[in-house]
Formats: sequence, structure tokens, C-alpha cells
Amino acid sequence: MAKEKSFRPKARRPRGFEDRAAHVIRAERALVSAASAVYERWGFEPLETPAFEYADALGKFLPDEDRPNEGVFAMQDDDGQWMALRYDLTAPLARFAAEGFQDLVKPYRRYQFGEVWRNEKPGPGRFRQFVQCDADNVGAAGPAADAEMIALAAEVMRAAGLKDSEFVIRVNDRRLLDGVLESLGSADDTRRMRVLRAIDKLDRLGLEGVELLLGKGRKDESGDFTEGAGLDEEQCRLVLDFVSASFDSESFSSAFDESITPRAVLESISQFVGRTEVGRAALGDVEQIIDILEALPSASGAWKFDTTVVRGLGYYTGPVFETELLATPTYPDGSPMQFGSVASGGRYDDLVARFTGQQVPATGFSFGVSRFAAALSALGRLEGADSAPLVVVIAADRSQMADYFAMAAELRSAGLRAEAFTGNGNMGKQLKYADRRGAAFAVICAEDERAQGLVTIKDLKLGAELAEAITDRDEWKEQKQQFSVPRGDMVAEIAKRLSAR
Amino acid sequence: MAKEKSFRPKARRPRGFEDRAAHVIRAERALVSAASAVYERWGFEPLETPAFEYADALGKFLPDEDRPNEGVFAMQDDDGQWMALRYDLTAPLARFAAEGFQDLVKPYRRYQFGEVWRNEKPGPGRFRQFVQCDADNVGAAGPAADAEMIALAAEVMRAAGLKDSEFVIRVNDRRLLDGVLESLGSADDTRRMRVLRAIDKLDRLGLEGVELLLGKGRKDESGDFTEGAGLDEEQCRLVLDFVSASFDSESFSSAFDESITPRAVLESISQFVGRTEVGRAALGDVEQIIDILEALPSASGAWKFDTTVVRGLGYYTGPVFETELLATPTYPDGSPMQFGSVASGGRYDDLVARFTGQQVPATGFSFGVSRFAAALSALGRLEGADSAPLVVVIAADRSQMADYFAMAAELRSAGLRAEAFTGNGNMGKQLKYADRRGAAFAVICAEDERAQGLVTIKDLKLGAELAEAITDRDEWKEQKQQFSVPRGDMVAEIAKRLSAR
Repeated sequence: MAKEKSFRPKARRPRGFEDRAAHVIRAERALVSAASAVYERWGFEPLETPAFEYADALGKFLPDEDRPNEGVFAMQDDDGQWMALRYDLTAPLARFAAEGFQDLVKPYRRYQFGEVWRNEKPGPGRFRQFVQCDADNVGAAGPAADAEMIALAAEVMRAAGLKDSEFVIRVNDRRLLDGVLESLGSADDTRRMRVLRAIDKLDRLGLEGVELLLGKGRKDESGDFTEGAGLDEEQCRLVLDFVSASFDSESFSSAFDESITPRAVLESISQFVGRTEVGRAALGDVEQIIDILEALPSASGAWKFDTTVVRGLGYYTGPVFETELLATPTYPDGSPMQFGSVASGGRYDDLVARFTGQQVPATGFSFGVSRFAAALSALGRLEGADSAPLVVVIAADRSQMADYFAMAAELRSAGLRAEAFTGNGNMGKQLKYADRRGAAFAVICAEDERAQGLVTIKDLKLGAELAEAITDRDEWKEQKQQFSVPRGDMVAEIAKRLSAR
Repeated sequence: MAKEKSFRPKARRPRGFEDRAAHVIRAERALVSAASAVYERWGFEPLETPAFEYADALGKFLPDEDRPNEGVFAMQDDDGQWMALRYDLTAPLARFAAEGFQDLVKPYRRYQFGEVWRNEKPGPGRFRQFVQCDADNVGAAGPAADAEMIALAAEVMRAAGLKDSEFVIRVNDRRLLDGVLESLGSADDTRRMRVLRAIDKLDRLGLEGVELLLGKGRKDESGDFTEGAGLDEEQCRLVLDFVSASFDSESFSSAFDESITPRAVLESISQFVGRTEVGRAALGDVEQIIDILEALPSASGAWKFDTTVVRGLGYYTGPVFETELLATPTYPDGSPMQFGSVASGGRYDDLVARFTGQQVPATGFSFGVSRFAAALSALGRLEGADSAPLVVVIAADRSQMADYFAMAAELRSAGLRAEAFTGNGNMGKQLKYADRRGAAFAVICAEDERAQGLVTIKDLKLGAELAEAITDRDEWKEQKQQFSVPRGDMVAEIAKRLSAR
């Protein structure tokens, strides 16, 4: 002890980690709880995997001895094996499914939420720990499972409080473009990645910019040259036709465009995508996805077939989708919050095979809880996330603490949120505490009140309102805001005032 | 990709970490949610701190370069600072309170639940990651805050589904024994720790064994000698009088003994504890705790003043308590589960001072979620933790998937838990899936049914019951278990059968 006292550490968090405040926690819990209820209703089962996985199971190469923390937080266990904190919830699912594959009831549909860790350079708003929420289906090969994921995402958006007009799910299938490229004889990996990267820049560069990147390459304003995918003019045309099939001519606004239906997009691309086997398979699957989503009330009108969607993650193998927020949440200063996709996913049939060598079909989607909850809070949704109104029983006379605790217990029995003040300080300090806690009422029972069998109730919210009202009748204000009732009427009086609000 | 394919990692968890199954997760969530509701009602605010803290902030000495993981999972950040995963939720709270002390609304009453990590040798049932749930009050010096924690613990036990007779909270104050030792002139640290350790062995060694350890020492059956605290006979007598004040003569059963009231214990020890200032202060505080707990309906009858309680953690400075389960949960094989204290806590006024140098009063308590939830599950409590009955719509005809999804959506709209089968396999395989998922009903709409506008409903729970019934009327069984209704009556028929159970 003596030694420890002489060393006084500075109280500070590690860089890039945050303490979450009560209102943030409540919003995140409300979101996770709404999403979990949807997953449960759809028959998904919860799963929790540990924070650590063996580094090789995470699909990263073994950490470099000199830089064991590259990208993940890794450490060597006593027995010399490298472990790392999970950086998402998909890799642990793949490990879990592979580990217990024989006994797993398949298709295995699970949801999971929890912390993930990324060992990245921290910056403003960039944290090294955050919460993700995932739903996945392992073992179902057909497009029905993909359609279910998209419908599920739509229902989660609605459960989170978004209206139909406030989000859109953009759906595509990676194999459609693969079909196009294959028919061009341009399906080698390097070219494919260049094409994907070019399409990914559509929002920023427009069709002309993309065309350059598909062809010979593009020089940007600073003079830097990006090499192109090397397609000839006709090949470029075909890819651009494919990409622009889901929006009207040259305009690709993010707004939901009902004039181009999924079936219309499908029809317009089917001729040139259907030239190859992979393309035909994808067209058939997309058609089934359309059939199912049109039959589901929760999905219809919530999604769009969008051939411009290119999900970055290398592991997707078929249908992919991303959910875009159309409503624009703003910061308190009125400036808009920038959001890309709030939820995204797709099919990844190779992830379990990493362990078993046997391909296992899998599809799923994920959203970042903190980012999405922040957007919803800014939009005024997740209202269930507010805490109940608080009543603080003032410790007006220290010898009567037992009575103050009994009063708080009475208030709680009536379904209210209540506490007796446990700290130190005079009445003024205690009332300030109640104010800072955002309490709705303070209850005072000092010697005078006790002698008369009364309690004084201070309506703190009304107090704040009246303080803003322009009147010089201070006495009237005081009376409205603070009044005495018989001790036996305390609970009923407070309940009455709360229900009148 | 090519490189990764050639390396095939084994799918396995790091040693000492577990995947939590659905029924375990549901039980733990039900417990955490019940406890959180209690904390919220009492006016506590949620807090979430990050998994990592700087190693020095955790109160351990800096990790040894050679064994950086001693006891905690520690790693060096890019900038050379040592971070470690939290091993409890109290140290991070102390860091949090110290870091934002000026702006904190005090007393700061928060609750937190979350994972903690211990880098210990894993063993059967011993995990290196588990969930804790804590409630604490930082900034309240008086015994009212301690009494509140004890009452809160009692209410959490009840909210978890325990009856009054199934648990008892044993309350003591460390300073009472300090008072006794000081009056004996035996308050030096080594002797104090030996006395505490001796008392801690009361359950195992009985009063005679403790007497030996208080005096010259004790030789156990194996011949090993434990050195005693070196008290003389009269000093021993006084300590034993103190320790045995809360139980009847030589019997110290763990059962709740109502014959010795807290006030009776207080009276019997007050004369010899009250000889010193520290003893008198403790007596006064305990009396206030008794006053408050007797005034609170949720606490009265749920606790016992127990002078034998010695909490091991060095940081406690005043009142301490532990919650003992009196009900005995059993494993499926009937053998009893061994539980010590399921929730414990106390006052720790020095923890924030580690950072600030300024003493900040604090008190709180904690329980291990997994252990407690396992006990409650074994006792058949936490019933809300069961999932709702599941209905599986069989994919009888792949061309009709959209319709099956629509049927599942209809069932969900009526508040049921329902899914359409998304995997592969014939009817038999799908019905087996439904069985293994524990589904209550399977719904079948194959070509025949569709032609007649019917669906076939299979009552899987009834099926299991009838299969056990001794009768050879198989046809009758079949009819009871499986029947057809018009498609439009599907939801109503299933809802009716569920509500009849």
C-alpha cells in the first residue's frame, strides 16, 4: 500500500477509447433491443462468442513478431499461440460454425451484438472499440435466405423508428457484373478489381470519370494518374449500360426512384448479363429475391435493385446490399451528419471453407450500433430510450434518513423512479443536484413539514418553464412551482402531475 | 486468396473462453435486465467504460516486460504505453470518477454490466472472460449510501425471482474488528491480516480452529503449521466474543437465524467495540444502517448483521456485505451446485484517491452474471428468459417460396415467432429441423393443399406427447397431431392452440 500511494497514476482513458454516457447507452440499448426483437420474431437464435479468437482463425496472417498489433489487438498466450480481439462478428461466426458443424441445426440462423476492436490510428469520432449487431444464416444456399436478410434489414430499419421514405436498401448481385466481364473475356482478378473500384467511384466522379477508369485511366485535378482497367470502347459501353440500368439517364441521385422497378432493371440487363452461366445463375436468383420481397409487406417499397452497388469486402460471393439513410440527421449546430451505408451485407460462401475445406453457404448483414443510434437520436427517434422521470427526496434532516428512504420506496412502489439523496450538502446544494440530474420533482420533509404531517413538493420542470415566463409575479411562480400536501397524498399528487404532462 | 487457401487453420476457441448458447444468453439477459430495471428505478445511471484501461490505472504495478500478461491481458500500445483489459468494473469506475471529478454530479450513482477478463489458468468451469454487473455510489460518505446498497442488493435478489427464504445478505463493518484490535494494542497490519484470515476460516475450522490461529498457531492434519496472530488468551476471548456475537453459541449454520436481531448483535458488541474512536464511529454507522434497512420493505427480513463476514479484497474501508444463496440449485444429475457469495460489496474510500490524492467516499456491490444466472436457471427462475414458441413454414415446393415467406410474415404480424425454411432438404429433413429447433408447429402447404386452399398444421409438441402415450391407435394419433385448415384460418388456429396450453 505504502508503495502504491507514492505512485499516483494520471486518470485517463487509452487513446481512441470512449466512456459512453447514459443517454448514449439508452439510445444504443433501445436500438439493439428493437433489432433483437425482430430477429427473435423471425426465428433467429442469439449467440455470444468470446472477445478473443486465435489470430489465424480471424483470417489475418499471423501477426508479425515486431508489429503484433497490426490492424487487430493481438497478444501471445502463455502457450505461445497468438490471440487477437475480434474485429467483427462474422469471422467468429465462421469459426463457431466450422468448429461445431456436425451438431449444428442447419440452416443456423443467429444474431449477435457486441463489441469489436480495431487497432487503428484513433482520430476525432474514430474509435478503436465499437458495437456491431449482426444477423446471419449459415447453411442455406438459395436466394431465399438472401431475400430474408434484405426483408429483415427493412424490418429492423422500421423497428428503429424510420419511416418508409427515410431509408432505402440497395440490392445487387456481384455475379451479374462477373457475368458481364466474363462475356468480355475480362474476368481476371486484377482487371475485375479495377472495374469494381471504378464503379465504386461513380458517386464522386460521375459516368465520365468511371468511363475513363474503365478504359485507359484517369488524371485527377492534382495531376495524379490512375491506371484504367483497359477495356476497349465497346466493353466500356457494356459495363456502363449495366451500371446505369438502375437509374435514369445521367442522374444518379440517392433518392428512391420508384419509376424504375426491380423487374424493369432485371429486364434491361438480362440480355447481356445472360450470355454466361454465372450471369444466368445470378439473374435467376435476383428474380427469386424480387418475388419474395414483393410478397413481404415489410420489404416492399423499402428496397431498390441497384447495379451500382459494389461492396468493398472481398469475401462476398453473390447478392450484396447496403442500407442508405435518406433522412438527414443533423448535429445540434444544424450541420448535416454524414452517413454512408448504415447496414450492409451479402452472401459469403467461402468463409467457413477456410477451416473445413468444404464450401458452406452463408449470408448475413451487419450494422454499427453506435453510428446508427447516433443518427436515430439526432432524428428524434428511439424515444423509448429516455429514462423515466426522477423524483429526489431531499435529505433535509439527517436524523430522518430512514424516513426519506421509506418515502422513495413508496414512490417506486407506485412505478416511479425515485431516490433519497445520499450525499452531503445543504438544501440548496441538494436541489441543485436534483436539477442537474434532470429530476422532475424534489420532495422535502424538514422539521416543519414533519410536525404538520406534510411534505413539500417542488415541481422542477415547471420551475424551469416558469423561470422563462415573462412576469414579475414571483410569488405566484413560487406557489405554482412549490406546494405542500399531506404526506399520505405525496405519491398520488406526483403521479397526477406526471400523467397530466 | 490463393495463399490463404493453402493454409487451413483449425477452428477452435482460445483456451478458457466459451461460446454462450441461446438458453444461457437468454437467462443472463433476463437477469441483467431485471437488475438494470431495479437500478433505474432507484435513480442510478448506466455507464459503459471501454474494455481497455492503462495498466497503471488498473492499480496493478506495470506489467513485467517478460510476463506482461500476469493476471491481466496486457499489451503495449503503439506509443509504448501498457494497456490491459479490465479485470473488474470497479477500477474503471475509479478512473472515470477521478478523470471527470469536477464535472460529475455527486453523489454519482451508476450501474454497469459488461465483460471482464482475467488472465488465469483456465480449468473446468473457470473462464477467462465473464460478465459482471455492478452498482456504485461515488461521493456519499455516510452510512445511508451503504444501507442503500444493501437494500438494492435485496431488491435485485427478489427481482431475480428469489423468495425471502432463499437468500440472506450478511452485513458487517470492517472497522468494528479494527476497533477491537486497536483496543488490544494489536492493530498493526501483519497481525490484522492474520486475524482477518483466521476469522475467514471459521466455516471450515470452527471456533476452536480459529482460536488457535488467533493465538500461537495451528497444525493441520497433514502436519503443516500455520503461524498464529499471537494474541494472548484474553485478547483471543475478546475477538471470539466479537465474532460469535451474531450466532447462537457454538452453532454457526448459514441458515437465517431470526432469533438474533441486528440490534441485539449491536448491543452485545457495543461495550468492547466502543472503547476506541474507530469502533464508536462504526457502531454509530451500523445503527443508522439498521434504522434505514428496517424502514425499507424490500430489505427487512432479507439481511443479517454478521460479525463473521470478512471480505477478502484489500480495498474495503467500512461496511461490507455478501449475499448468500440459501436455496440449493442442483445440476441435472441432482448433485448440488456449490455457491459462495453470489453478490458482494462494501465501502472503499481510497480507490479514487489513488489518482487524485484526495479521499473520495465510495460504496457499491457486484455480482457475477453467469454464475448467478446459472444458479437461477437451475432453480427454475428467470422464466421470462424462455423464447416464444416457434412456427416453421415448411418449404414444400421451392417455386412457392414467396408464399411461404408471406405466411411466416402473417404469423409474425399476429405476434408469433415464425420463419420460412431457407435451407435445403426434403420434407422429412425439414420436419426434423423444426423438431431440433424446438418448434411448436410446422405449417405445410404443398401442391395438394394449395389446390384446395388449405394448409396442414403439424402440432410438434402434441406429437412428442402422443408419441410417448401408450396406444396402438396410430391413425388417431396422426389425426390429433396433424390436421388441415383453410389457409385463412391458419393464424387463428395456431394462436388458439397456443393459448390453450
